[in-house]
Amino acid sequence: MGGGVVASLRRAGFATHVRDIRPEATAAAVALGAHPHDSAAALAAACDIVIVVVVDSDQVDAVLFGADGVTAMLAPGAIVMLASTLDPDDVAGFAARLSGAGVGCIDAPMSGGPRRATDGTMTMMIAGAADALARCAPVLAAIAGKVFEVGAAPGMAAKFKIVNNLLAAVNLAAGAEALALAAAAGLDVRTVVDVINASSGGSWIFADRMPRALDGDYAPRAAAKILAKDVGIAASFAARLHVDTPFALAAQATFREAVATGHGELDDAIVYACAQRKALPDEPLCQGESSVNRP
Amino acid sequence: MGGGVVASLRRAGFATHVRDIRPEATAAAVALGAHPHDSAAALAAACDIVIVVVVDSDQVDAVLFGADGVTAMLAPGAIVMLASTLDPDDVAGFAARLSGAGVGCIDAPMSGGPRRATDGTMTMMIAGAADALARCAPVLAAIAGKVFEVGAAPGMAAKFKIVNNLLAAVNLAAGAEALALAAAAGLDVRTVVDVINASSGGSWIFADRMPRALDGDYAPRAAAKILAKDVGIAASFAARLHVDTPFALAAQATFREAVATGHGELDDAIVYACAQRKALPDEPLCQGESSVNRP
Repeated sequence: MGGGVVASLRRAGFATHVRDIRPEATAAAVALGAHPHDSAAALAAACDIVIVVVVDSDQVDAVLFGADGVTAMLAPGAIVMLASTLDPDDVAGFAARLSGAGVGCIDAPMSGGPRRATDGTMTMMIAGAADALARCAPVLAAIAGKVFEVGAAPGMAAKFKIVNNLLAAVNLAAGAEALALAAAAGLDVRTVVDVINASSGGSWIFADRMPRALDGDYAPRAAAKILAKDVGIAASFAARLHVDTPFALAAQATFREAVATGHGELDDAIVYACAQRKALPDEPLCQGESSVNRP
Repeated sequence: MGGGVVASLRRAGFATHVRDIRPEATAAAVALGAHPHDSAAALAAACDIVIVVVVDSDQVDAVLFGADGVTAMLAPGAIVMLASTLDPDDVAGFAARLSGAGVGCIDAPMSGGPRRATDGTMTMMIAGAADALARCAPVLAAIAGKVFEVGAAPGMAAKFKIVNNLLAAVNLAAGAEALALAAAAGLDVRTVVDVINASSGGSWIFADRMPRALDGDYAPRAAAKILAKDVGIAASFAARLHVDTPFALAAQATFREAVATGHGELDDAIVYACAQRKALPDEPLCQGESSVNRP
């Protein structure tokens, strides 16, 4: 999704800098007019707002506070936007450490996937100090179609995002369960998808993911390991609050199994293929099967 | 939903007859220009297509084959459309018995709720013999926005409907779980609903039901007992096919509990209130609480 953010920022005319450990991602950003850097620290020296689009809290920690991390090089008053889906407590912790270094922090998770990131139409939840939010408003306007300001304390937006992603994970995993049942019943699964998309069982993620699942296209737009991580955060967050979440736990089991069987790097639509194979053990998992089980 | 069907048929100019055991439903249909009858048998004598919109297989059995049922009075070649969500095996059984009496049968479950029934924009799945489907096509065009013809054998459409309603039940019950977690985390639940409706966790039924749940409005458009029945059919159907359905079972538990605690006649959005009360035991279940626990 970082590439989509770069595209939207460039379209809006922002001077944009990029640091990505994947050379192909850096090259794509440069092709859009972004300035490449060899380290997060080098990028930080050139920016007053840094958007961190990585997978998990370990990566955020490394980008912010690791060797060649951004914090040491950011000018006082600079702002870090944390755009990943993270544990709310981790976000609060990062914000406190940044504050200690004189750097502002906006909790700014985003929803919508790479396509909406590129279109500049993502939904974002944001939480942070009013002055920091005001300074980031033009950037947010460039990358998001809808911005929900949900609080002043970093970590609040993460809570909203976790609740949303709990549902995204459940709706997707349950969709895979429903289509496995349909296949076992001898129904044409493509027709079932069309029916559900027009009926009361439809959901955003079902409509978004199932077309590529039906095509056996599991090139990762959103890797299964990411939703596995998100629903794990949701389950842990709920446990700390003593709230029972049987649906989140069932989704966690689905995504954990996808990762454990070597499919974590594939698109999260792979849960469809995993469910089909359980219901119809003789079916191939997907095209290019022989390479799928190798991590 | 029967009232909505009458409204759509009348708008399309069909001579429409009605039999409902609830006097107020009959009166509403008469106000739309339908001819009332005192029994299903009396209605059958006046119709060549009979649409049965009841809750479950026991009611279908009574309407078709009970004392004063339609089958004995239908002219040979008449057609019965079964519009309820029923076990596919029951639908096949009803069709066989109707066939023995010289009466055609269309398996025609519908999705969309009372509002879309009234607008004539429901989604319908239909299965039946080609000549019967052709004869019913003008009626279907009047009441449905989308018609999916899914097979020649009655019972096939019921399978599609059960798979859809499995997902509707899961998406709704999981939505209630997510909002209970949000409330326990101290989030503003109305904002959470707005965020989810604009994000990857959104679903048709979440967007449809949660506004009334937030208002504490549980006047039944779709009674909780109906989705309880549907997800029970889905779980039983899956068990017969040896397909594991952890999400359907979790939803079955949610809806069973809603019914067992005396909320089966309320709108199925009541699962929101039930989940809130579990997460926040001091919260009232809904407005008019004192009457809610009496069946």
